[in-house]
Amino acid sequence: MSYFNVRILGCGSATPTLRHLPSSQVLSFHDRLFMIDCGEGTQLQMRRYGIAYAKLRNIFISHIHGDHFLGLPGLLSTMSLHNIEGEITVHICREGAELLQTIMEAMCREPSYTLRYNIFDPAASAVLYEDRTMIVENFPLFHRVPCSGFIFREKQGPRHMRGDMAKFYNIPHWQIPAIKEGADFVTSDGTVVPNERLTTAPTPAASYAYCSDTAFDLRVAEAVKGIDVIYHEATYGDKQAARAGIRGHSTARQAARIASESGASRLVIGHYSKTVTDSSVLVAQAAEEFPAVIAANEGMKIDIR
Amino acid sequence: MSYFNVRILGCGSATPTLRHLPSSQVLSFHDRLFMIDCGEGTQLQMRRYGIAYAKLRNIFISHIHGDHFLGLPGLLSTMSLHNIEGEITVHICREGAELLQTIMEAMCREPSYTLRYNIFDPAASAVLYEDRTMIVENFPLFHRVPCSGFIFREKQGPRHMRGDMAKFYNIPHWQIPAIKEGADFVTSDGTVVPNERLTTAPTPAASYAYCSDTAFDLRVAEAVKGIDVIYHEATYGDKQAARAGIRGHSTARQAARIASESGASRLVIGHYSKTVTDSSVLVAQAAEEFPAVIAANEGMKIDIR
Repeated sequence: MSYFNVRILGCGSATPTLRHLPSSQVLSFHDRLFMIDCGEGTQLQMRRYGIAYAKLRNIFISHIHGDHFLGLPGLLSTMSLHNIEGEITVHICREGAELLQTIMEAMCREPSYTLRYNIFDPAASAVLYEDRTMIVENFPLFHRVPCSGFIFREKQGPRHMRGDMAKFYNIPHWQIPAIKEGADFVTSDGTVVPNERLTTAPTPAASYAYCSDTAFDLRVAEAVKGIDVIYHEATYGDKQAARAGIRGHSTARQAARIASESGASRLVIGHYSKTVTDSSVLVAQAAEEFPAVIAANEGMKIDIR
Repeated sequence: MSYFNVRILGCGSATPTLRHLPSSQVLSFHDRLFMIDCGEGTQLQMRRYGIAYAKLRNIFISHIHGDHFLGLPGLLSTMSLHNIEGEITVHICREGAELLQTIMEAMCREPSYTLRYNIFDPAASAVLYEDRTMIVENFPLFHRVPCSGFIFREKQGPRHMRGDMAKFYNIPHWQIPAIKEGADFVTSDGTVVPNERLTTAPTPAASYAYCSDTAFDLRVAEAVKGIDVIYHEATYGDKQAARAGIRGHSTARQAARIASESGASRLVIGHYSKTVTDSSVLVAQAAEEFPAVIAANEGMKIDIR
């Protein structure tokens, strides 16, 4: 498993079933964990799959529906009982931040860590998180309440130094970082060796987009254009397309059309309605539009690279 | 299984483990269900054990700690998604009612049913619910936050008519209900046959007390005096008695002393700390004080009669 993957903790929808839990995922990037949504039972799923509370520093909440949010107060309380220290940031809309704050005031007034709210506008796009190697943005989804998707983008790494060229020109070690960043090399006789002869292209940066909950809308495809792996809700199958529209949800086929339009390399569907008893039916419908599709399941780990 | 029983949905404590879920129980009395506490995951446990949402009309919350409360918003939302109608009453302290109301306003503004709050003072005793055959009272527990236990008391039924006497005196059917309630019978020649010759004593009414969370306190034994079956928290074993005191919890042995002092016929222990890996150790310690003790477990059904 590579350094960039997503673990599905829950991929059911609002009405709980014994097949699926409500929405939550943990994205792992190098040694950092990012949580996306936190339905009821998420903290237990973390224990089940041995996910360390201590590595979780950023939690992204798409919208304030119970099946995406109600596991958060319990998780945050438990993290305090475990004496997690440092800063935990919850990226959330204003209404959600106020609600969470009220609950925390009543239930976990003085957590062991500093709880920070990064309030975003679900109707706009913005950078929510950035470090040296990763950038996280939100973008609008189209649901019954204000709702946001999230894009996790690995930053482009440096170019690769060609070993044969380093040897041929006898390049001093101290110059290599600059060459990886694009500098040319100047030999002792003043000859300029252009960078493209010395290096090969960097490893393409990988990216992941989370799209739940949303009605079918081509603006979503636009927002996630060029993203490698897309998780898109597929609450219903073809037969319930009308219901999907009414409820602000998508069918598996619609999810596949978004993946196809956006030029994704892979699609993961989830957020199944309680009426979906066999996700392979959804996969079959989606595959007619976009063949590289799989059905999410609790515990599944998806390699993003 | 008799018409009066309790199903354990969760008997762990605040820090979740894979062994136990947070606190919740469903008491079944004839065709009515009463929920006691509602930790995270309770709605899923209801599905797991096939407990019908529609029969649940009264929910009692002991105190506003996450492991006793955080399943409630999700359960109430799901009950609305299931279009449950009529009236649902949550018996809860004022702070809890305000918190729940805030969450419901944000997440489930117009439930399919009427949500009623019956606010009680956890520091006092009061009748919270009463119908023809059952009465529910709260009483104070001694925890880090205001906390209440609950007593479920079957009302005493009528005396039993002796078939031989009914036949001997040829008692008309229409007089039997009154005789069961204690009336004498007057024969056609004016002879008064006293009730005690005609009837036998009623079936003793059964009762159940829920005591979680609480430090060891003999006032609890006083409050539950004469109750048949007691559920008492036993967060720790003997070795952690000091920690129990500090955290406002009890050991298994202390739970047993409460049962013994109150004259209970049976004791069920639960609310195990994450450090308790084998509840039989707790049972052994409790049994030294009160032999009729069992350890609660998820799914267990306890007959109260």
